[in-house]
Amino acid sequence: MRKQSFIILLSLLLIQQVTAQSPELLTIRKYANKNAGNIINEFTEFLSLPNVAADTVGQQKNAAFIMDMMKKRGIQKVQLLPASTAGVPPAVYGEVMVPGAKKTLVFYAHYDGQPVNPSQWAAGLSPFQPKLFSNAMDRGGTNMPFPPDGSYDNEWRIYARGAADDKAGVDAILNAYDAINKSNMIPGCNLKFFFEGEEEAGSTHLNEILEKHRSLLGSDLWIICDGPVHQSGKRQIVLGVRGDTRLDLTVYASKRPLHSGHYGNWAPNPAMMLVKLLASMKDDNGRVTIKGFYDDVTPLTTAERKALAEVPSVDEQMKKELGIKGVDMQGLTLSEAINQPSLNINGMQSGNVGTQSSNQIPTYAAAAIDLRLVLGNDWKRQQQKLVDHIKAQGYYVTAKDPTDEERTNYSKIIKIVPKNDGYNAQRADMELPIVQEVIAGVKSISSNRVVLQPTMGGSLPLFIFEKYLAAKTVTVPVANHDNNQHAENENIRIGNLFDGIETMGALMLIK
Amino acid sequence: MRKQSFIILLSLLLIQQVTAQSPELLTIRKYANKNAGNIINEFTEFLSLPNVAADTVGQQKNAAFIMDMMKKRGIQKVQLLPASTAGVPPAVYGEVMVPGAKKTLVFYAHYDGQPVNPSQWAAGLSPFQPKLFSNAMDRGGTNMPFPPDGSYDNEWRIYARGAADDKAGVDAILNAYDAINKSNMIPGCNLKFFFEGEEEAGSTHLNEILEKHRSLLGSDLWIICDGPVHQSGKRQIVLGVRGDTRLDLTVYASKRPLHSGHYGNWAPNPAMMLVKLLASMKDDNGRVTIKGFYDDVTPLTTAERKALAEVPSVDEQMKKELGIKGVDMQGLTLSEAINQPSLNINGMQSGNVGTQSSNQIPTYAAAAIDLRLVLGNDWKRQQQKLVDHIKAQGYYVTAKDPTDEERTNYSKIIKIVPKNDGYNAQRADMELPIVQEVIAGVKSISSNRVVLQPTMGGSLPLFIFEKYLAAKTVTVPVANHDNNQHAENENIRIGNLFDGIETMGALMLIK
Repeated sequence: MRKQSFIILLSLLLIQQVTAQSPELLTIRKYANKNAGNIINEFTEFLSLPNVAADTVGQQKNAAFIMDMMKKRGIQKVQLLPASTAGVPPAVYGEVMVPGAKKTLVFYAHYDGQPVNPSQWAAGLSPFQPKLFSNAMDRGGTNMPFPPDGSYDNEWRIYARGAADDKAGVDAILNAYDAINKSNMIPGCNLKFFFEGEEEAGSTHLNEILEKHRSLLGSDLWIICDGPVHQSGKRQIVLGVRGDTRLDLTVYASKRPLHSGHYGNWAPNPAMMLVKLLASMKDDNGRVTIKGFYDDVTPLTTAERKALAEVPSVDEQMKKELGIKGVDMQGLTLSEAINQPSLNINGMQSGNVGTQSSNQIPTYAAAAIDLRLVLGNDWKRQQQKLVDHIKAQGYYVTAKDPTDEERTNYSKIIKIVPKNDGYNAQRADMELPIVQEVIAGVKSISSNRVVLQPTMGGSLPLFIFEKYLAAKTVTVPVANHDNNQHAENENIRIGNLFDGIETMGALMLIK
Repeated sequence: MRKQSFIILLSLLLIQQVTAQSPELLTIRKYANKNAGNIINEFTEFLSLPNVAADTVGQQKNAAFIMDMMKKRGIQKVQLLPASTAGVPPAVYGEVMVPGAKKTLVFYAHYDGQPVNPSQWAAGLSPFQPKLFSNAMDRGGTNMPFPPDGSYDNEWRIYARGAADDKAGVDAILNAYDAINKSNMIPGCNLKFFFEGEEEAGSTHLNEILEKHRSLLGSDLWIICDGPVHQSGKRQIVLGVRGDTRLDLTVYASKRPLHSGHYGNWAPNPAMMLVKLLASMKDDNGRVTIKGFYDDVTPLTTAERKALAEVPSVDEQMKKELGIKGVDMQGLTLSEAINQPSLNINGMQSGNVGTQSSNQIPTYAAAAIDLRLVLGNDWKRQQQKLVDHIKAQGYYVTAKDPTDEERTNYSKIIKIVPKNDGYNAQRADMELPIVQEVIAGVKSISSNRVVLQPTMGGSLPLFIFEKYLAAKTVTVPVANHDNNQHAENENIRIGNLFDGIETMGALMLIK
């Protein structure tokens, strides 16, 4: 049962911030509002299917559910795209070819979620039993029944694993198409749908899937519908990601732990050696002092610099939220800082601390480091700069624990082990016509509510799309920034889900 | 059964390095050699008694065993000296008053040992089943039966908990007296014997025992028979110990762990903050840069400087043994280095390393620090210098986890928690007549085989003797330096045990 009053209410809530929209967008919004009850019913059914990537049976059910969703909506060529490797969750594919269309967009989301530890979820919550709350729990929201009349408020939340990351993406995409189709409109371009089932497990077989099914996947642009909108709550278009590479460092001293009394001052202390080494890597303004660290950086274009300047500041809001006063790179905003390569200490260990500590000189000191990369950086070259810096501090570098001979020959010995293959940053050119059209598409909803980010701080292997398909990507997220992504109590804000339908719809109308 | 050939053999082994000795010392040595079988039999019986301080029943057996040893040797006033606190292992006391003696020496050793983890001991060894080996195990020594004829070789070893630390001390002292007594000689001074049962547990109740039984414990000097002889194998007299105080440091950043991609460069990294702070505490020459760190140091006297210059160098030997090339304080020998106050990082932790690490910015970084002190340093003042240095680096110092208000007000926050009450260094004046007599006593055995150390690097709460009895102490160790003290496979070299009997005997002859 849908009430007229609900439509008016929801229209008010959702539309009141909108300034000037096309009739098509208004139609999409109206359709979504009118069908909110059905949309949420289907969504909660979807969220009830456990979706951890390693759960093969669970993932088959999710993939089958998505195929049904697509078939119901009249999408063509609905099929699974398996990897070459057996037992891997397949991608789910479908397409809508539009006669006379000049462009093809692929809409990407992933249906797998992060592993769950149900015991860490709040009392009354279970990862695969979606619950409705009157607001975020940490803002005093309480559990409430799903309304039988389908009247939803923007501030309400649904708690479940995958609610935000990234079944909300699947749902926003498929309901956007549904709204266009059921409203007797025609998309502006050819649409392809690609839903991955292994993203949270590292997209380990995405390369195989793309290679094997390349012939299906030709496009002008991939729209990556994943991640949160801006912390300010505004819609966000992200044109790139930072690259990443990680290394383990171990500095060695005496072969056996020494009594700090009998040998302190004389025997080298590996923890002190390591802190001196790490401290040499950054200055007091937070700038990395490794030679050439910033040299390869591709400068931001005028358009990107302009976009960056227009990103609303969330720095004070985030400082309050995180309980910090100062920042790392002096004088840079969060948006500016993530457009620079970074060197982060992820972890550090030597001897013991607290009640476990003893008055010893430890035998080694270890650190885990990650280097974030921006456009222009090459992950191997960036690693090499770090290694060269360490050598310049007088270290003998080895890839293994030192031999007795090495110990005799060198007073400063470090083991450096790259943790994995790194990957480079990726950034779509903001001035490419297709990218401009995406920007215009999202802005067509509300130009003063769109944040344009040249890059996000985190890293995604978007280079895979470039490498295996020569494809371009733009990320257009829909989830609220406080969605507890990857953690317990994951949730989607209702308003974000419906904004997402509208946003995806706007992109499908691009001609 | 004792063979004449054995006596000749052992005499050759033990006496060949001796240059010129008094008839009394020769008598002591002869007696010990002749009775080697009985001495070792009694010693292994003693070592078979488990002696961890917390094992109350086991400690009662040890104390009773020592009382029996003393009574058998005709020592007077044999008794237990309990602490005021119940359930604490008592000290064992006895005395020999010499008519006309002008001086009183107290001979100290402890009968408790470090806790044991039998699974860490080498195959075939059990901490409380003493075993004889043909040499140190890591020099190819193999297990052999105890010889029925009592013929022992200096290089043989007995493996058991307490064999070196410090039942060897008890044994050397009581057998030295036995040798004097049974050879119809008379000690040069009054002798008191004091065997502690709680040293490895931190001498927590020693103050109570000394206070409660002060009337029994008047003396001119305490001889502390504990620890190893010099790494060169030479006999050693140690006139002092370093003091010690320990602190836990914790640097704080964001309240929740952050994604190093989304926030790296912007959010402060507590590990980087901590390494900068710790690195600021020492220069590249290993000197502590904390203001005034070396200011209070009481300079070595001319005699102490001379003694230090005569300590044989073991630096190259130790570097080889430990697998290190460089040293911490540039240009100082081991002996010189331990005569300076030191700052040691005992442990350090932030986030995770190795396979456990994730690409995060941790919430905190912790370090455990110990400050070793030399004569002139005050542990509270030395702690304050460290705190002042940290404040001068811009830190707000707290004793607790920071509140939200503190997080809002300060960009650099550190928690500093002293781990315990520290204690100061202690050093007997080398030129005191009684100390000179001890030096002469030990040198009377072999002047070119005695190392005179103004201080040892480690710390012992010798200040307790000064504080509660106004007593002076000199440490005269007997164990081999490679005795695996505090660890698995503890052992005593036979030659060291017999040298120890002779050394203690020489001291008992002081008039």
